[in-house]
Amino acid sequence: MTDTKTSNQPAEKDGQSSAGQPEILYAQEGQVTFGPDQALPLDCGVELSPYTVAYATFGILNEDRSNVVVVCHALTGDQYVAGTHPSSGKPGWWSGMVGPGLPIDTDQYFVLCTNVLGGCMGTTGPKEIDPGTGKPYGLEFPMITIADMVRAQVRLLDHMGIDKVLCVTGGSMGGMQVLEWAASYPNRVISAIPIASAARHSAQNIAFHEVGRQAIMADPNWEGGGYLDTGNNPRAGLAVARMAAHVTYLSEQALHRKFGRSLQDREAVTYGFEADFQVESYLRHQGITFVDRFDANSYLYITRAMDYFDLAADFEGSLATAFQGTETRFCVVSFTSDWLFPTSESRNIVRALNAFTAKVSFVEIETDKGHDAFLLDEPEFFDTLRGFLTAAAKEQGI
Amino acid sequence: MTDTKTSNQPAEKDGQSSAGQPEILYAQEGQVTFGPDQALPLDCGVELSPYTVAYATFGILNEDRSNVVVVCHALTGDQYVAGTHPSSGKPGWWSGMVGPGLPIDTDQYFVLCTNVLGGCMGTTGPKEIDPGTGKPYGLEFPMITIADMVRAQVRLLDHMGIDKVLCVTGGSMGGMQVLEWAASYPNRVISAIPIASAARHSAQNIAFHEVGRQAIMADPNWEGGGYLDTGNNPRAGLAVARMAAHVTYLSEQALHRKFGRSLQDREAVTYGFEADFQVESYLRHQGITFVDRFDANSYLYITRAMDYFDLAADFEGSLATAFQGTETRFCVVSFTSDWLFPTSESRNIVRALNAFTAKVSFVEIETDKGHDAFLLDEPEFFDTLRGFLTAAAKEQGI
Repeated sequence: MTDTKTSNQPAEKDGQSSAGQPEILYAQEGQVTFGPDQALPLDCGVELSPYTVAYATFGILNEDRSNVVVVCHALTGDQYVAGTHPSSGKPGWWSGMVGPGLPIDTDQYFVLCTNVLGGCMGTTGPKEIDPGTGKPYGLEFPMITIADMVRAQVRLLDHMGIDKVLCVTGGSMGGMQVLEWAASYPNRVISAIPIASAARHSAQNIAFHEVGRQAIMADPNWEGGGYLDTGNNPRAGLAVARMAAHVTYLSEQALHRKFGRSLQDREAVTYGFEADFQVESYLRHQGITFVDRFDANSYLYITRAMDYFDLAADFEGSLATAFQGTETRFCVVSFTSDWLFPTSESRNIVRALNAFTAKVSFVEIETDKGHDAFLLDEPEFFDTLRGFLTAAAKEQGI
Repeated sequence: MTDTKTSNQPAEKDGQSSAGQPEILYAQEGQVTFGPDQALPLDCGVELSPYTVAYATFGILNEDRSNVVVVCHALTGDQYVAGTHPSSGKPGWWSGMVGPGLPIDTDQYFVLCTNVLGGCMGTTGPKEIDPGTGKPYGLEFPMITIADMVRAQVRLLDHMGIDKVLCVTGGSMGGMQVLEWAASYPNRVISAIPIASAARHSAQNIAFHEVGRQAIMADPNWEGGGYLDTGNNPRAGLAVARMAAHVTYLSEQALHRKFGRSLQDREAVTYGFEADFQVESYLRHQGITFVDRFDANSYLYITRAMDYFDLAADFEGSLATAFQGTETRFCVVSFTSDWLFPTSESRNIVRALNAFTAKVSFVEIETDKGHDAFLLDEPEFFDTLRGFLTAAAKEQGI
């Protein structure tokens, strides 16, 4: 096992980073590589070995290792939850939520986030070198599932000597991992906050993912997944996939409020195919910037993992059975204008938890910001997480 | 002016076509080409000449030419409303609605539908030969608008000696044409039925269209729009565009009911990128079959025309002004589960009509079938159209 740890943040409190975010005490990142003696059994039947888990931590692990908050990232997220992102130089994806004095308070909690298995930010995925061939895995990478992602996280926690976690939380695909954590490792999860998520991926969401995958695979530069061997990149296909997905992250109201039919730097339509409307220009920008930071094959694998997610199927077809006898305290959160992971999906989770009288609170946040709301400043949402987490910590004497 | 008329249906009543649809008395199709003396002034400033309008008619025009129902087709529709489609051999796209004894009864009405300007089924569009160059127009075709489409239809009616129409109807983009007809030619429209439509294209809908266009333009076989010159076809890109659009035509409920998470001809997931789920297989089929019948550049032009549609903008920014003083009788129809053209858009139309106390009824049909409901058998919807049309005809003494 190789363990590399590098600090990417100055260990200085209350300073300001270049991006204007408060510096976080002891923000660190690292990678752990697990060798053949610790092969990871995947749902597809493959024993993955070796594999590396890349992670970032924020705050200080207390002496009895009881203040751990595991944050699980969404489809295109990564381990850089807070602080300054090492490649983009921008604030981490949840920097409004995680930090000193913020709802997930790094002055109190030790926050850990791993790049998911199949990802492209340091954890083993299709862009890493297959030791068997000396070339990038590409489509030779085994198919991974949400349960596999969580398995890899558990291995990292074992390696760190962390037994129980105070809380596991995350939105969207992060929420799927939270549910998997709670169902498969109930004794290790004191509290769980699945946000804007679902216990299984819907037909509509599978359909949207399939559109994105077909867009990538339609790009000749994808080369059957082998583009890394030739130095190519299916940029156009990946950008289209991102654009299609991005529309689903926003609500119709948010798009209307943000853009309406406003024109982009012009007074009248051009009667052409340029981006006349601001919403077109915005979408194109989303597509173009995404391809610089994400691997197309990772996108295929991770969307597939989400499609395959059906927690009930792994527990005799009953979601309630998945949570039977759990001592975990749950806080299920949804957003009114989220049509990708609508409130009805969260209600299904709550219903299953109620079937065996689990400890569960359910909060539906009123917002017009759509699925993306879980990444944005929503005061009621922030208050909910802060309150729930404080109560869970108090109960544990933290 | 050249006028070609060919009967594509046996003039035999109550027979059965090969597709099992009742034969329609006097179903005919034709093309009219308008020469330089009748150039069509387009919104973009170009005078289009020559141009051809392809059309189909169903039923018999009565002596005083008062029984005309103009049907306007949607984005990927065509003039083959009923009867048997000449290329696919399948029933026309509205064969449940238009025919002998059906709500739009071809025993009573003379139904006319033209392929829209910019289309690819015989009316002048980007795939037709530019007489100036002797090559297909491609992106040299001028940008067209919904108003231009209606202008071309009006020219055809003038040519046929039809002054007033009993009714103009259509769904989705067809409904946009209905609104344009009613606003720009109020004295020629006795009644109008815009279905599942909007008086302007929303930011979300522009965004979805932009995804489709980018998918087409990302395909190297698109060749900057010049693929017809080289015999290529951006099949992959067009298929992705169709798939992305198709998801928006269905409701989440309909997808869940039709497919859920059911697997395609297999008992377990394959842990691969094959179409494991039925919904994936269905979507891929939608994409593949579409490219055989539609021109990629037409798709670009027609989606753009929809994006540009903003009826109020053409009437001093007020939708009510567009309909001020109208004598047309309106029936506005929406569907509860249509999230692409939601009921709120139809309510906006109704509100504008009410501002000047126009004659308007508004019907929201309860269905889980999404936007596509306007193409499907919905008994309450059928009854609504039959009733409204019968009343309009009676008032005219038909």
